[in-house]
Amino acid sequence: MDAADRLRVETALSYPEDTAGGIMNTDVITIRGDVDVDVVLRYLRMKGELPDATDALYVIDEDSKLIGHLSLSTILTTQPDIAVSEVMDHADEAISVETSDSDVASLFERRNWVSAPVVDENQHLVGRITIDDVVDVIREDAEHSMMSMAGMDDDEDTFAPVVKSARKRSVWLGVNVLAALAAASVSNMFEATLEQMAAIAVLMTIVPSMGGVAGNQTVALVIRGLALGHIGDSNKKELLMKEAAIGFLNGILWALIIGGIVVAWKGNWVLGGIISAAMMTNLLIAGIAGVTIPILLKKMNIDPALAGGMALTTITDVVGLSVFLGLATVLASYLIV
Amino acid sequence: MDAADRLRVETALSYPEDTAGGIMNTDVITIRGDVDVDVVLRYLRMKGELPDATDALYVIDEDSKLIGHLSLSTILTTQPDIAVSEVMDHADEAISVETSDSDVASLFERRNWVSAPVVDENQHLVGRITIDDVVDVIREDAEHSMMSMAGMDDDEDTFAPVVKSARKRSVWLGVNVLAALAAASVSNMFEATLEQMAAIAVLMTIVPSMGGVAGNQTVALVIRGLALGHIGDSNKKELLMKEAAIGFLNGILWALIIGGIVVAWKGNWVLGGIISAAMMTNLLIAGIAGVTIPILLKKMNIDPALAGGMALTTITDVVGLSVFLGLATVLASYLIV
Repeated sequence: MDAADRLRVETALSYPEDTAGGIMNTDVITIRGDVDVDVVLRYLRMKGELPDATDALYVIDEDSKLIGHLSLSTILTTQPDIAVSEVMDHADEAISVETSDSDVASLFERRNWVSAPVVDENQHLVGRITIDDVVDVIREDAEHSMMSMAGMDDDEDTFAPVVKSARKRSVWLGVNVLAALAAASVSNMFEATLEQMAAIAVLMTIVPSMGGVAGNQTVALVIRGLALGHIGDSNKKELLMKEAAIGFLNGILWALIIGGIVVAWKGNWVLGGIISAAMMTNLLIAGIAGVTIPILLKKMNIDPALAGGMALTTITDVVGLSVFLGLATVLASYLIV
Repeated sequence: MDAADRLRVETALSYPEDTAGGIMNTDVITIRGDVDVDVVLRYLRMKGELPDATDALYVIDEDSKLIGHLSLSTILTTQPDIAVSEVMDHADEAISVETSDSDVASLFERRNWVSAPVVDENQHLVGRITIDDVVDVIREDAEHSMMSMAGMDDDEDTFAPVVKSARKRSVWLGVNVLAALAAASVSNMFEATLEQMAAIAVLMTIVPSMGGVAGNQTVALVIRGLALGHIGDSNKKELLMKEAAIGFLNGILWALIIGGIVVAWKGNWVLGGIISAAMMTNLLIAGIAGVTIPILLKKMNIDPALAGGMALTTITDVVGLSVFLGLATVLASYLIV
């Protein structure tokens, strides 16, 4: 490596890992625009080898500013006596060194690129990104969402040491203890009602459970939409209305079914009515919270994939228990006969 | 399109969507091995254009059998008077038309390919797969895991019609009703105990909740490991021991913490002991079930990402409630003073 190469590599290493600068490499072949394609061909034969995943050479001016790129396809299919500047593609698609790695991945996916040049704020060529590194970003982003939703680090090794894994996971269990205690505190407020009728205790877990599942369906949809950039200010109201409507419809459906089951099981029409009302309310709230929680978390710079499900479940637990036990308390005189 | 081209395209369309045959295209440039590189160069200039993402030409014999490939890099860096067969790479890395799309994606990821030839059972070249289609497969596979874990179709559109979405999602809510009723039936068996002491009802949701969270951490880890091919017959026992050990350690930790909280809150040492014992048992079971359920589901050809979490939660709910309420019933005379 000569001094210029070393400088380039060192500069490349100084960028944050999750930016274009962090995933680029400096294995670029640069050429001038004023030479003929024939000169390029002779230059390449002299080099004898190209870096992996090279599909284009980069055309720079005397200040190292990127002015275009010449694809290998063009070199092979054009006449050799033509100037590079005549057949090159222009540099309007260069990636800025500060672009986030997820945005880089979206660009590659949308444009079907194999490689792309990276430039600094002065349009100087500083490196290139190749599709194999982009594939790693896509894989990591996707794994990150999946693992985070279960409260796991995405860098957790499948066969990591027991004590290390146990310690890492217990953090998330600690968050869940708070959520579980919040739900228990709600039940605790209705201890007198629970004392009067054990059937209420038996049935009280059903409404929170359904709310959690329905809400987490919405949360997964919204997390995916946010990651893909499909959800923004222009359409989040529409999404909220849609998910609330789905919650309302499924609320009616499952209110009828669970209400029917409870009447048949416990022979108590008031209890059936109470669980139906709680189910409807909770599935509606689950739809609304399922949209608003991930969007709010993202605004607060908290990863929605990590915190979204837990926050949602806490809300559907608290609302589900409050409505069910609250109604049972208010209607206790009709309920307990 | 001439007759031969049409036949090729029709054959390509006949393969299942999730195989190499289903994601390949037939935009290939084929050459013979006995010509010089110079002839290839002249042929390409005459063509004037190459298909997108072409990084190699395929070398076939007189029977259309694939014998190798010649990368664009090699064409550009080798001397033009050499025979193609001298500088080509051999065909040992061709993809069989029946390979699953996920296996194709792993191959591309491992080998950093930009494109790869696809052959039928007789080694005849039938098409090629390019990295842009592989990226789609990787994105879809990853989204599939994330969405399935929440009980969602991965093709569910963020802005799909309300009634259609509601109907699709209610299927999964229906599965959860059965799980919730299973848990309620367990509580129902202990109605007499619940009647005696409302504090038991207040606390009974904590142990299932912790077991569900801990177990789903393991399930997410195992689903990822299965998808990446990291888990097989050789190491699944080791994984089971590891996750059981983590469950045991975190079981002790949270048994002590929750036991302490319950003693402080309810002033009842027996109740604290009971919830501690139930917590330890449930987190141990959660670790074991978290490994075995996804592996068993995969053996039964059921998607572990879809069914794993629900099956796990049902088990941790049933075990958590049974142990907690069972111990409370057995120890009722010490508990209720």
